[in-house]
Amino acid sequence: MDTSVMTQALGELIGTFILVVLGDGVVAGVSLKRSKAEGAGWIAITLGWGLAVTLGVYASAFLGPAHLNPAVTIGFAVIGKFPWSSVLPFVIAQLIGGFLGGVFVWLQYYPHWAATKDAPAILGVFATGPAIRKPWANFFSEAFGTLILVFGLLTFTRGQWTDGLNPIGVGILITAIGLSLGGTTGYAINPARDLGPRLAHAWLPIANKGTSDWSYSWIPVLGPIVGGIIGAALFTLLP
Amino acid sequence: MDTSVMTQALGELIGTFILVVLGDGVVAGVSLKRSKAEGAGWIAITLGWGLAVTLGVYASAFLGPAHLNPAVTIGFAVIGKFPWSSVLPFVIAQLIGGFLGGVFVWLQYYPHWAATKDAPAILGVFATGPAIRKPWANFFSEAFGTLILVFGLLTFTRGQWTDGLNPIGVGILITAIGLSLGGTTGYAINPARDLGPRLAHAWLPIANKGTSDWSYSWIPVLGPIVGGIIGAALFTLLP
Amino acid sequence: MDTSVMTQALGELIGTFILVVLGDGVVAGVSLKRSKAEGAGWIAITLGWGLAVTLGVYASAFLGPAHLNPAVTIGFAVIGKFPWSSVLPFVIAQLIGGFLGGVFVWLQYYPHWAATKDAPAILGVFATGPAIRKPWANFFSEAFGTLILVFGLLTFTRGQWTDGLNPIGVGILITAIGLSLGGTTGYAINPARDLGPRLAHAWLPIANKGTSDWSYSWIPVLGPIVGGIIGAALFTLLP
Amino acid sequence: MDTSVMTQALGELIGTFILVVLGDGVVAGVSLKRSKAEGAGWIAITLGWGLAVTLGVYASAFLGPAHLNPAVTIGFAVIGKFPWSSVLPFVIAQLIGGFLGGVFVWLQYYPHWAATKDAPAILGVFATGPAIRKPWANFFSEAFGTLILVFGLLTFTRGQWTDGLNPIGVGILITAIGLSLGGTTGYAINPARDLGPRLAHAWLPIANKGTSDWSYSWIPVLGPIVGGIIGAALFTLLP
Repeated sequence: MDTSVMTQALGELIGTFILVVLGDGVVAGVSLKRSKAEGAGWIAITLGWGLAVTLGVYASAFLGPAHLNPAVTIGFAVIGKFPWSSVLPFVIAQLIGGFLGGVFVWLQYYPHWAATKDAPAILGVFATGPAIRKPWANFFSEAFGTLILVFGLLTFTRGQWTDGLNPIGVGILITAIGLSLGGTTGYAINPARDLGPRLAHAWLPIANKGTSDWSYSWIPVLGPIVGGIIGAALFTLLP
Repeated sequence: MDTSVMTQALGELIGTFILVVLGDGVVAGVSLKRSKAEGAGWIAITLGWGLAVTLGVYASAFLGPAHLNPAVTIGFAVIGKFPWSSVLPFVIAQLIGGFLGGVFVWLQYYPHWAATKDAPAILGVFATGPAIRKPWANFFSEAFGTLILVFGLLTFTRGQWTDGLNPIGVGILITAIGLSLGGTTGYAINPARDLGPRLAHAWLPIANKGTSDWSYSWIPVLGPIVGGIIGAALFTLLP
Repeated sequence: MDTSVMTQALGELIGTFILVVLGDGVVAGVSLKRSKAEGAGWIAITLGWGLAVTLGVYASAFLGPAHLNPAVTIGFAVIGKFPWSSVLPFVIAQLIGGFLGGVFVWLQYYPHWAATKDAPAILGVFATGPAIRKPWANFFSEAFGTLILVFGLLTFTRGQWTDGLNPIGVGILITAIGLSLGGTTGYAINPARDLGPRLAHAWLPIANKGTSDWSYSWIPVLGPIVGGIIGAALFTLLP
Repeated sequence: MDTSVMTQALGELIGTFILVVLGDGVVAGVSLKRSKAEGAGWIAITLGWGLAVTLGVYASAFLGPAHLNPAVTIGFAVIGKFPWSSVLPFVIAQLIGGFLGGVFVWLQYYPHWAATKDAPAILGVFATGPAIRKPWANFFSEAFGTLILVFGLLTFTRGQWTDGLNPIGVGILITAIGLSLGGTTGYAINPARDLGPRLAHAWLPIANKGTSDWSYSWIPVLGPIVGGIIGAALFTLLP
């Protein structure tokens, strides 16, 4: 590909923005009071997140490789599939996209924050949290989910998807991980998707907001990075 | 393509008719009393609308460009992707298709209107309304949802969908916007989908109907047009 | 294609068998007592029916045209897309497939009939019934649903589906019609799907069964045939 | 393909591992207490299992034929589509993959077993059980479900799927069988998917676990094998 790193990083920013707008958006729709989607449940959330990632990839893939996830970028760099020199611009762009995505979800649902007197539910729109707080188990959950994600993405590169359908394959993978492995920690499986909007939550004057739960915030950052590296490394062992 | 503007406009009328019959139809099925789909929820509505648009595009795409939405037509005209001379015939055809779609949804569910003693629910089959009435926030919601729609449609033109699957891509986009951004105003994101059937609601002798809420009706018309123009313009800034 | 009418009719029998086994099967799963799918709702039913038709078409398409529906066969014959001489063998094969499908659904859920003390629910596994009994409105519902089905199928023939995905397109159409137009009469939209298993219901020694509701049975036969003919005829008017 | 039986068997192990991690994972998510997916219902389970099989096939198909199911392997061997000499290594690899999948589901949901005081629900994560215990009917259910699975897989080989989408076709088949035929016994339709994780359940120190219900365990092993052989044999009778 002939596009420069700046163009590719712009692609990461736009794609991660779309991903977080639609992904955090579906959690807002399901969680916030008086939303028409209130109570639509786990199927809505996992389907919405899968579609969010599919459309994020589409909005990014013509500008660059569309990782939209530092765990993917770092995992691919570790196995030599991505240049280390581009890692920092990519991760910064992904975090900016995630932060801006959080800001626009706040604007989109503006009247609903005041209607929702539930600070943890409000934080849950922006960032993940554990169903049962137990750091090593939560860390394992995030790492293993991301291992499956990165391993799965790499199997597509040896599969027979027509190229144009790759974004749908990625969405299927995200929905599957959400349905099957996400019940424990809400499947961040992506540091930019969690840290970016968590920073937006901390910074924005959201009605009824509470703590941004920084004591948990390292798990959805380090867990996915570790899992992504292991998933990528395991894949290179295959014949 | 060699088809004349008249043929293309016929394609808009047919496609918007199918879109509204199936889209308003799923709201009727979920909202009206004694329907077998009663209470099927937000997943049914967002999935049904996505499929409605996919099938509307299929029923239209062999006759013309299948916009089925004045916000798309105007947005594309602003950036020079569509001739201004065809805008008026397209918008008129889309509105007629939307109006006729509303009429046939009324016929399809004929015995269920008398069974439903809830005037706002009946209006909700034909036209959108805000979850929390706050004009500038509702306007932002409709504009931002349509921005994502038009921007997303344009990313497909630079993507790698096999052409025959474009209608499925459009349906995915509609379902995603519904799930993620639709909880606030019911995502008209299309003036013809809202104004066309709202006129049908005003004109038809529907049992138990109440007001057509004309004071709100400008938002799902102007919001999508403004959002569509911004989305199209932003896309042209990309490298 | 070089296959004889006998081979094609065998394809109709097999495809309609699969269609009814999976289609009536999902209604059984959702409706019968102590089933693990009990209460899974309208989304399960409409998704299940869509997949049933997709898989029925796959199991039939390598032997013949895979109509699996007398309303499609007759509608296509009226507009000259299908030879009248093959109509009778096709319709008979479709009815036999539907009947046998009903028999195998009875066997598959054998212990659950005795657990279900609700005769209308048991009939509802095999045959459709109106949400509100009103013959002309029910007739309109079945006719209009089938009009959309046959018109939609014909738009695919002028579209750009890769051939191998046509069965998925058909399933999307069925799911959409179910979600959007099916709440009134349960969308038979196919005489073989309704009459075939209704005969099985009448004939089989099903525990707790009641009447087969023959007074209604003409509507899901004649309604779809009339609607299919109108849908096919309208399509031929297009430029 | 040039890959040796060892490589193919490794593909079976990996694919069946993914299949069981994601398949048993969705049951864990829906069934275990305090999971964010708790109560997401039958749609989540059937959709999750379909995606699990799709992704298992993707993770396996570049190493071998991706059966991931002894009933498929044996059925194909009986009709001469697969060499008998590879059957034993395949079945062993599938069972090991299933066992390891069960182990990792236990780890993924580690804090949730102690929170779930319902031994049959815990077993239900790892292995299937009958809705109504009646051996011959349960055996028929498993055999007929697998007959449809193997017959359906074989119809794909004569269809027009683009090769790269075959895994999606398989997932559609699994979701359809789950929705339509799975309400009776929980659709093992795969001995490795049932026996592998049942062994893990018996062996692991899972909090609150009860019996592994060995008296039922032969049905989801022998039923699928018998049904798979009949489905494959019937397919060979087609013109």
